[in-house]
Amino acid sequence: MLAEIRGLNEECGVFGIWGHPEAAQITYYGLHSLQHRGQEGAGIVVSDGERLQAQKGEGLVTEVFTEEMISKLHGQSAIGHVRYATAGGGGIVNVQPLLFNSQNGSLALAHNGNIVNANALKHQLEAQGSIFQTSSDTEVLAHLIKRSGFLTLKEQLKNALTMLKGAYAFLLMTENELLIALDPNGLRPLSIGKIGDSYCVASETCAFDIIGAEFVRDVLPGELIIINDDGLHSEFFSYSTSNAICTMEYVYFSRPDSDIQGINVHSARKNLGRVLAREANIEADVVTGVPDSSISSAIGFAEEAGLPYEMGLIKNRYVGRTFIKPSQELRERGVKMKLSPVRKVVEGKRVIMVDDSIVRGTTSKRIVTMLKEAGAKEVHVCISSPPMKSPCFYGIDTSTHEELIASQHSVEEICKIIGADSLTFLSVEGTLDAIGRQGYGKNCGQCMACFTGEYPTEIFSDTLLPHEKELSR
Amino acid sequence: MLAEIRGLNEECGVFGIWGHPEAAQITYYGLHSLQHRGQEGAGIVVSDGERLQAQKGEGLVTEVFTEEMISKLHGQSAIGHVRYATAGGGGIVNVQPLLFNSQNGSLALAHNGNIVNANALKHQLEAQGSIFQTSSDTEVLAHLIKRSGFLTLKEQLKNALTMLKGAYAFLLMTENELLIALDPNGLRPLSIGKIGDSYCVASETCAFDIIGAEFVRDVLPGELIIINDDGLHSEFFSYSTSNAICTMEYVYFSRPDSDIQGINVHSARKNLGRVLAREANIEADVVTGVPDSSISSAIGFAEEAGLPYEMGLIKNRYVGRTFIKPSQELRERGVKMKLSPVRKVVEGKRVIMVDDSIVRGTTSKRIVTMLKEAGAKEVHVCISSPPMKSPCFYGIDTSTHEELIASQHSVEEICKIIGADSLTFLSVEGTLDAIGRQGYGKNCGQCMACFTGEYPTEIFSDTLLPHEKELSR
Amino acid sequence: MLAEIRGLNEECGVFGIWGHPEAAQITYYGLHSLQHRGQEGAGIVVSDGERLQAQKGEGLVTEVFTEEMISKLHGQSAIGHVRYATAGGGGIVNVQPLLFNSQNGSLALAHNGNIVNANALKHQLEAQGSIFQTSSDTEVLAHLIKRSGFLTLKEQLKNALTMLKGAYAFLLMTENELLIALDPNGLRPLSIGKIGDSYCVASETCAFDIIGAEFVRDVLPGELIIINDDGLHSEFFSYSTSNAICTMEYVYFSRPDSDIQGINVHSARKNLGRVLAREANIEADVVTGVPDSSISSAIGFAEEAGLPYEMGLIKNRYVGRTFIKPSQELRERGVKMKLSPVRKVVEGKRVIMVDDSIVRGTTSKRIVTMLKEAGAKEVHVCISSPPMKSPCFYGIDTSTHEELIASQHSVEEICKIIGADSLTFLSVEGTLDAIGRQGYGKNCGQCMACFTGEYPTEIFSDTLLPHEKELSR
Amino acid sequence: MLAEIRGLNEECGVFGIWGHPEAAQITYYGLHSLQHRGQEGAGIVVSDGERLQAQKGEGLVTEVFTEEMISKLHGQSAIGHVRYATAGGGGIVNVQPLLFNSQNGSLALAHNGNIVNANALKHQLEAQGSIFQTSSDTEVLAHLIKRSGFLTLKEQLKNALTMLKGAYAFLLMTENELLIALDPNGLRPLSIGKIGDSYCVASETCAFDIIGAEFVRDVLPGELIIINDDGLHSEFFSYSTSNAICTMEYVYFSRPDSDIQGINVHSARKNLGRVLAREANIEADVVTGVPDSSISSAIGFAEEAGLPYEMGLIKNRYVGRTFIKPSQELRERGVKMKLSPVRKVVEGKRVIMVDDSIVRGTTSKRIVTMLKEAGAKEVHVCISSPPMKSPCFYGIDTSTHEELIASQHSVEEICKIIGADSLTFLSVEGTLDAIGRQGYGKNCGQCMACFTGEYPTEIFSDTLLPHEKELSR
Repeated sequence: MLAEIRGLNEECGVFGIWGHPEAAQITYYGLHSLQHRGQEGAGIVVSDGERLQAQKGEGLVTEVFTEEMISKLHGQSAIGHVRYATAGGGGIVNVQPLLFNSQNGSLALAHNGNIVNANALKHQLEAQGSIFQTSSDTEVLAHLIKRSGFLTLKEQLKNALTMLKGAYAFLLMTENELLIALDPNGLRPLSIGKIGDSYCVASETCAFDIIGAEFVRDVLPGELIIINDDGLHSEFFSYSTSNAICTMEYVYFSRPDSDIQGINVHSARKNLGRVLAREANIEADVVTGVPDSSISSAIGFAEEAGLPYEMGLIKNRYVGRTFIKPSQELRERGVKMKLSPVRKVVEGKRVIMVDDSIVRGTTSKRIVTMLKEAGAKEVHVCISSPPMKSPCFYGIDTSTHEELIASQHSVEEICKIIGADSLTFLSVEGTLDAIGRQGYGKNCGQCMACFTGEYPTEIFSDTLLPHEKELSR
Repeated sequence: MLAEIRGLNEECGVFGIWGHPEAAQITYYGLHSLQHRGQEGAGIVVSDGERLQAQKGEGLVTEVFTEEMISKLHGQSAIGHVRYATAGGGGIVNVQPLLFNSQNGSLALAHNGNIVNANALKHQLEAQGSIFQTSSDTEVLAHLIKRSGFLTLKEQLKNALTMLKGAYAFLLMTENELLIALDPNGLRPLSIGKIGDSYCVASETCAFDIIGAEFVRDVLPGELIIINDDGLHSEFFSYSTSNAICTMEYVYFSRPDSDIQGINVHSARKNLGRVLAREANIEADVVTGVPDSSISSAIGFAEEAGLPYEMGLIKNRYVGRTFIKPSQELRERGVKMKLSPVRKVVEGKRVIMVDDSIVRGTTSKRIVTMLKEAGAKEVHVCISSPPMKSPCFYGIDTSTHEELIASQHSVEEICKIIGADSLTFLSVEGTLDAIGRQGYGKNCGQCMACFTGEYPTEIFSDTLLPHEKELSR
Repeated sequence: MLAEIRGLNEECGVFGIWGHPEAAQITYYGLHSLQHRGQEGAGIVVSDGERLQAQKGEGLVTEVFTEEMISKLHGQSAIGHVRYATAGGGGIVNVQPLLFNSQNGSLALAHNGNIVNANALKHQLEAQGSIFQTSSDTEVLAHLIKRSGFLTLKEQLKNALTMLKGAYAFLLMTENELLIALDPNGLRPLSIGKIGDSYCVASETCAFDIIGAEFVRDVLPGELIIINDDGLHSEFFSYSTSNAICTMEYVYFSRPDSDIQGINVHSARKNLGRVLAREANIEADVVTGVPDSSISSAIGFAEEAGLPYEMGLIKNRYVGRTFIKPSQELRERGVKMKLSPVRKVVEGKRVIMVDDSIVRGTTSKRIVTMLKEAGAKEVHVCISSPPMKSPCFYGIDTSTHEELIASQHSVEEICKIIGADSLTFLSVEGTLDAIGRQGYGKNCGQCMACFTGEYPTEIFSDTLLPHEKELSR
Repeated sequence: MLAEIRGLNEECGVFGIWGHPEAAQITYYGLHSLQHRGQEGAGIVVSDGERLQAQKGEGLVTEVFTEEMISKLHGQSAIGHVRYATAGGGGIVNVQPLLFNSQNGSLALAHNGNIVNANALKHQLEAQGSIFQTSSDTEVLAHLIKRSGFLTLKEQLKNALTMLKGAYAFLLMTENELLIALDPNGLRPLSIGKIGDSYCVASETCAFDIIGAEFVRDVLPGELIIINDDGLHSEFFSYSTSNAICTMEYVYFSRPDSDIQGINVHSARKNLGRVLAREANIEADVVTGVPDSSISSAIGFAEEAGLPYEMGLIKNRYVGRTFIKPSQELRERGVKMKLSPVRKVVEGKRVIMVDDSIVRGTTSKRIVTMLKEAGAKEVHVCISSPPMKSPCFYGIDTSTHEELIASQHSVEEICKIIGADSLTFLSVEGTLDAIGRQGYGKNCGQCMACFTGEYPTEIFSDTLLPHEKELSR
C-alpha cells in the first residue's frame, strides 16, 4: 500500500491567548518566536467578544504586520498562525487562521499538522453541496462542524474530530471561547501557558519565555480544552490515545530553547551527538556542525569524542529572499550565498561533519564538496538520526518515497553518492535512548515512522502532496 | 584636546570588479557576502566603457536589487557599496557609490572608513562656491579632485588624497579605469582577488570565496592601484606609512571565514578565547557565548578551560525589522525578540558568558539578568578584548567618550553595574599576542586606539558624529 | 411595507469573451471602457479549457493589472468585472469574478445588479450547512447551483435563477462554456458583440467600440445565452418577462457613447435637456452644466432655450484619490478640489445650472453657493429627471428613503434648502417622452421606480444596504 | 542659425506661500490645482524659520503625498513644484524644488520655464570645479548664486539672473525669505495672491480660487519680489523689459478658470472659436470639440456659426497610466482607450471638428479617421491658433523644427495628410484680436514665436532638448 502513498505536508506554528488587554501584541510576539515553524505567511484573528477581525499576509511575521495593524486589532483574545513555505505556493487565501462568518456568529481556525483523510472528506462534502474556498485541509473541519447536527460548538467539534485522521493541533476561536484540540496520538507539540490570569497556548514553549508567560502543562493526546471567561475546562474527545510525539521535532524542527514533553531540545540534540560519537568512533582532527540546527549535536559529539569543535561552516545571516539566480558560469564556480566553508579551519584536516538528517542527499553532497574544495583531507559525515526511509504524513514536508535517498539506497551507496570518506547514521535505539534519557522517562513514546515505516495512524491512498493540493483546487 | 572630540562614524563594505561580462551580478554576490558590514543601504554602479549607470536603495542587498534591475546594469566593470545603519538615518541621497556626472565624463565613488578632517575641508570648499549634495564625507574627495589643477584623474586623485586625514578604503571608477586607494595607516581591510582574467577588490576575502575568485594579495597602506584594460598597475601616493589595521575587525566586525592580512578571523577569535581563559582562570560549570560574534571565542575558551561549551543563549534567526515596540508592561515582562536564554542549560549552573566587547554596558547587563532569571547560579562575564576606553574615529560606530562605560568606570564598577559575579577583560598584551601569533608574525601592527587612546593619525576637534553629520547639512 | 425597506446596493460592470487568442487583453480593454461603472476593484478570470485562473485587486483597472499579469493569463476565454465603491469597503474577498473550485471543475461568476432576496436565501443556505466566504449577494447563486439536484450546469443554473428576485446580469464561466443570464425584467443593460468569430458580452456597447467589436444584439429579459466552441445558443429561463430597463442608465450612469436598447445615451440626455427647457421656460443669460454627466443635457437645454452654453464649472481632471482632508479653516474657505466655478463666466449673470438628479441635496447646495460666491446674480437649477422619491433596490447606490431629499420635502422646500432662485424637475411624462422618442419606439418600457415608487419586482423587508452587507458577515 | 537649434523644454507649475500656519497643506492644494501643468513629479519644501525640509516624489500630487507626510512638513512657509512628463524620464533627482544645504544655511529652488543658455553656463561652471547633481537647468542658478561674490542673497540672485537668458518664473526660499523672479519678457505667467495676512504666489490664478485666496496682482517682467515677515518688497533686476506672455497658455495650456494678465482663459478660448468661425465660414451640420482643451473654442465656434454643438468625441475619464500595450492586431482594430467617437452623433453628418493646435499631425489624423469610421460624411478641421512653424524654447515641449508638420508642409498638404475635407487655421491677426479684445487692452503683448519664428530673446545653438539633457549628464 505504501507504494501508492503520494506524499505529505506542511509544518506550521500556532499561538492563542484568551482574556488579555494586549492580546494582538502578545500573539505577534508569540508568532515571532515560532517563526522557524513557517515563513510563508502569518495571520492573527482577534475577538473583542462581539466580532472577530483578521489580519493576514504572505511573508514573515515582521513583514506581514505593522505597528498600526496590530494597534487596530482590538480585542482581549486572539489566535495566530505561521505557515510553512510549501513548494507550490498557495497564496493569501490559504494563510491561516481561516475566518468563517455566518449569520449565527464567526469561527476562526488555526491548524498545525496534516489530516490524512482530508481529501476523502472533501469529496464527500462537495458531493453534498459544500463550496471550498481554500485548498487547505483545515477548511474540512469547518464544514464538518457546520454540517454536524449538534447544538453547541463543543459538541459539533467533538463530533467533527471523530471523523478526522492524522496529526493535528487545532485552535478554534469564537466570540465567546477558545477551543484547543490535539490529535489522539499527540503527534504535534502543543502547550498551555499563563501570563498573569490569562491562559495562552503555543506550539512550542519558547513562545512562553518570549512573552514572559509561565509554562503550565502540555496538552494531552485526544484532549479538548476550552478556555473562556470562566477559566480553563478540559475533557477528552477520544479515549483511544497514545503518546507518539514526532521525533523530528527534537532532531531538527523545534527551537533549541523549547521544552517538548519536559525535554529541552538543545539538550536532546547534544545527547544525540554524544550517543552518535560513541556509535561512530572515528579518528579525526576536528568536529564541525552544519548551522544552525546541528550545532548542538556537533558540540555534544566533540565533547564525547574529545575532539575540538570548530566553526568549519559559516551561515550567511543576511540570506534574505534573493530571487536573483546565479548564471550557469557562476553556479559552476560555486556561488555560496547561504553556507561557506572556513578554509583555514578545515585545510589539511580530517573533518567530522555532523548534520541532523539526510533527505535527498543533495545538500550533504554540496557541503562535502565544499569542504573538500576548501582543503579538508577527509570528510566523515555523521548524522544524528537514523536513515529517513519513509515519508511523513503528519505535517513535516520531507519528500516522497522515491525522493528519499535512504529509501532507495544503502548507507554505503549514500556515502559514495555524497562523496564522503565515511557515513554514520545514529541507530534507532540510540535515538530513543538519547532523547528518552531525560524528562519524564523512557515511557514517553515517540513517533519514529519516518525511520521505521510504522505509522501510528491509518494512511489513505489519496493523501495529497502539498503541490498536489494546489493543483486539486 | 580629546575632551572636545565629538564622535565617530560608520563601517561599510566595498566591492569592485573590472572587465568581466557579468560585472553587476558578481558585484551583487560580492556585496551580499559583505552584508554584515552595512545594512542601511546598498548600491552598484556599472560601466560599459561609455557611460556609468547607478542603481541604489535603502535596505539589504536582497531588498534593494531585483533580478530585472541587475540584468539591466549592462557593463563589464562595476563597483558596489553596503552602508552601515547610522542612528540618524541619512536617506537615499547618502547611499553609495556616489555618482558624479560632468560634461567631461563620469566618476563613481565608494568609501569605507572615515575622513577625520572632512568637516574642515567642506567648510573651505563651500567658501569657494562648491555645493554639496550629501552629508557624506566621501563627497569631499570628489570636490577636491574636481578642483585640483592636475590633468589626469590619477594625478588629481593623488593630489586630493594628500589632503585627507583618517581611515579610508576608496574605490573610484570612470568609463576607463578602476582606482583603489588605502589610507597610509592601512586602517581598513582591502584585498585584491582574481576571477578568470578579471581583477576584483573587496573589503573582506570572504567575498572572493563566494564568487569563486582567488585571493591575490592585500592592498598596502598608502598604495594606489589602477586597474584598466591593460591590467593592474600599482604605485604609492604616500611613503610615510605604517600598518595599523583595526583590531576590532578581528574581534567583532569581520566574517569568521575572512582572512585579514593572512590571519583567519575565526581562528583569531578562538585564540582570543584561549588566551582569555588562561588570563581569567575561573571555576565554573559551563561556558556559553553571545551569538553570533562570540561563539568562536567561547569555544576557544571552553577548550582551553576544559569546560563544556553550551548553547546557553539562542539568537532568533528571523528577527527582521520589527517596528512594533512592546508596551511598557510587556517590556517589563522582558519580551526577548532577539536573544533568549536556554533555561535547561543554565539552570543551577555557574556560567561563564564570553562576549567580544562592552560598549555602554546595557546589553551585557540585560544578558546577565536574563541568564540569572533563567536560573544561572553564577554569571562570570569574560570579554575577549580590553576595556574600550576611547572612541573610534576611523569608521566604527562605537560611541562618544562619555558613553563608553570603560572610559568612566573601573572594571570593578562595571562588574557591579552589569550585575555579574565576576568580570574579566583580555589584556592589551594578550590581545596582541592572540591575534599576532598566526599569519605574518608579530610585526604585523594593529590599531589599538579604542583600548589605549593612542591614535595613529591626527584627530581634529570638529570631527563629526554621524547624527551631527545629518544635522550639519 | 416600504417603511421597513432598509436600502439598496451597488452598480458594477461586466465583460466576457469566448474563444479569442487574446481573451485576457481584450477583457482588460473592455473593463477599462466600463470603468465608470465601478472603481473599487477589478478582476479577470480566464479559461484555457482545462483550468480557470483569476487575477483581481482593489482599485482601477489600470492600477490592478500590469502588463505581466495580463500576459500570464493564458486562455481563449475570459470574464471580467469592475466593482463600485460602496461606502463600507468590502476588501479583496468581495472583488469579482468570484471563483469556485471543486473536484468536479471550476466556476467563475460576475454579476451586475442586486438580488433583493439574497439575505433570506443566505439564511436558508447557512441553516443547511453552507459556509459563505464573501458578503456578496453573488455568492448565493453559486451555492444554489451546487445544491441543485440537476445534472448539467445549465439545468442547475435555470433552477437556481428561479429562486432569485431582483435585478441581475450574470456571467458564468467554466472550462467549457460561458453562460449569460439577464433578469426577467431586464433591469440592467447587457449586450452581445462579435469580434472576428468570437462572441463577447458587455454591460454597455461602448466596450465594443473600444475593442473593435461589432454590436450584435441586446440580451433579452429572462434569456439564458450559452456560448461555447459550438457557437451561441439561446433559451429562456422565464417566460413571465417585461422590459423595465433602468431609466437612470440613460440619465446618469452609462457612458454617452453607449447605446442602450438602440438609444444613444448622449442623444437621450440632449433630448432630456430640450424637453426640460420647454417645461422650465426661464429667463436667464447663460446655461451651464455640472460636469461630466450633465453636459449633454445642458447643451440640449441651451439650444432649445436659445441661450449661450457656457463652461461655468470646471472639473479637475486630476482629482485622484486624495486622502488628505482639508483642515476646518481651509474647509470654510471652501477648498475646491473637484469642481471650481469660472468667475468670469458667471459674474453678474443669471445662470441656469443643469444637473441630472438631486439625491440628498448637499452637492446641489454646494454648487449653488459656489456659483453665487463667484458672482452669479441668479442661479436657476434645472434637473433633467423627476424628483427621486424612492430608493433603488436594483443595483444603483442611491440612498435610503430618509436620506432622499425629494422623499421628505416638496420642490419648493428643496429650492430653499439648496439656495436656488428657482428649481425645476423634468416631469415623469417628459422623461419617458424624451428617452422614448428614439430607438425602437415608445413601447420600450422603463423602470421609473425611483421616481414613482412602482417597483417591477417584489421587495423584501430584509433587503440589505451595502454597508449592512459588510456588517452581516 | 535656426537649423542648428536642437530643441526645447518643459512646462511646469510653481506655488509658494509665506507665513501661514498651514503652509504645507495649502501648498498641497495649490499644486493640486496646477496638476495639469506637470504630472511627472511633485515636491514641497517647507521652512520653519530654522531649517528647510523637503518631500518629493514621482507621479501626481495625490500619489506623491500622504496625509502623514504633509502633517510632518512643519513650517510657516513653503514652495512647491509640479513637473512635466518629459520623454526621457529624469528620475527623482530632477524633481523640484531643488534643495541645497550648506554650512551657511539652505536654499530651495523651484522653476517654471527654460534657460536657453543653461548649457553654456554649465560648461563654464564645471570648468571652474562645480559638480552638478541634476540634469536640470535650474541647478545653474544655484551655482551662479554660490559663486557670486556679493554678500546678501538678494544681491547674489540679482547678479546671477543677469547671466540667464530665456523664460523663467523662479521661486527661491531660505529660512528667512521667499524670493520671486520673472524673466524680463514675462514669458511665463506668475501671480501674487493673499490668504488672510499671508502672501502666496502661483503659476496660475486658479490656485487662488482653490485655496480661498484673493488675487492681488501679476508679477511683472524683470521684477524681483521678496516676501518675508516684514511683508512684500518689490524691485527690478532688469529695466529692459517687454510683455511677451506665451500665447499657448491661452490657447492650450492653462486651466479655463485661470485669468492671465486679467484675461480669463475660457473666455479667450471661446473668442478664439468665434473669430475662427468667422474666418472659416464652412457649411456643416454639427460642431464638435476635441476634449478637454478645445471644448470652449468649439462652443464659441458653434454659437458664432449658428450650428449645434455636439459631443462627438468622448474622453475616457479613467485613462490612468496603463502600461499595457495593445497587440498589433488590436491596434489595427483601433483600440481607443483615451478618445472615442459617439457614432449616433456623427453618423451621416458634416462635422466641424475644432482643435486647439496641430503639432505633428498624428493625433489629428487619428481623430479624423475615427470620426469617418464612425460614419461622419465630411470632417472639417478648424484649428483655433495659427500653424505652429517654429519650436518653443521657453518651456513648452512642442517639438523640433523637423517634427513640426506646419514647418514642413503647406496647409493644403497637411489637410491631405490628416485626411480632412478641409483644414482652417486661425490667422495670426485673428489670434491677437481674439485674445486681446478683453482684459487690459490691445497693448498687452504676446509671444507668438511658435507661429511667427520671431523669438523675444537670443537663442543659442546648444540649447538642449529635454532628452538630450538626460544624456548629457
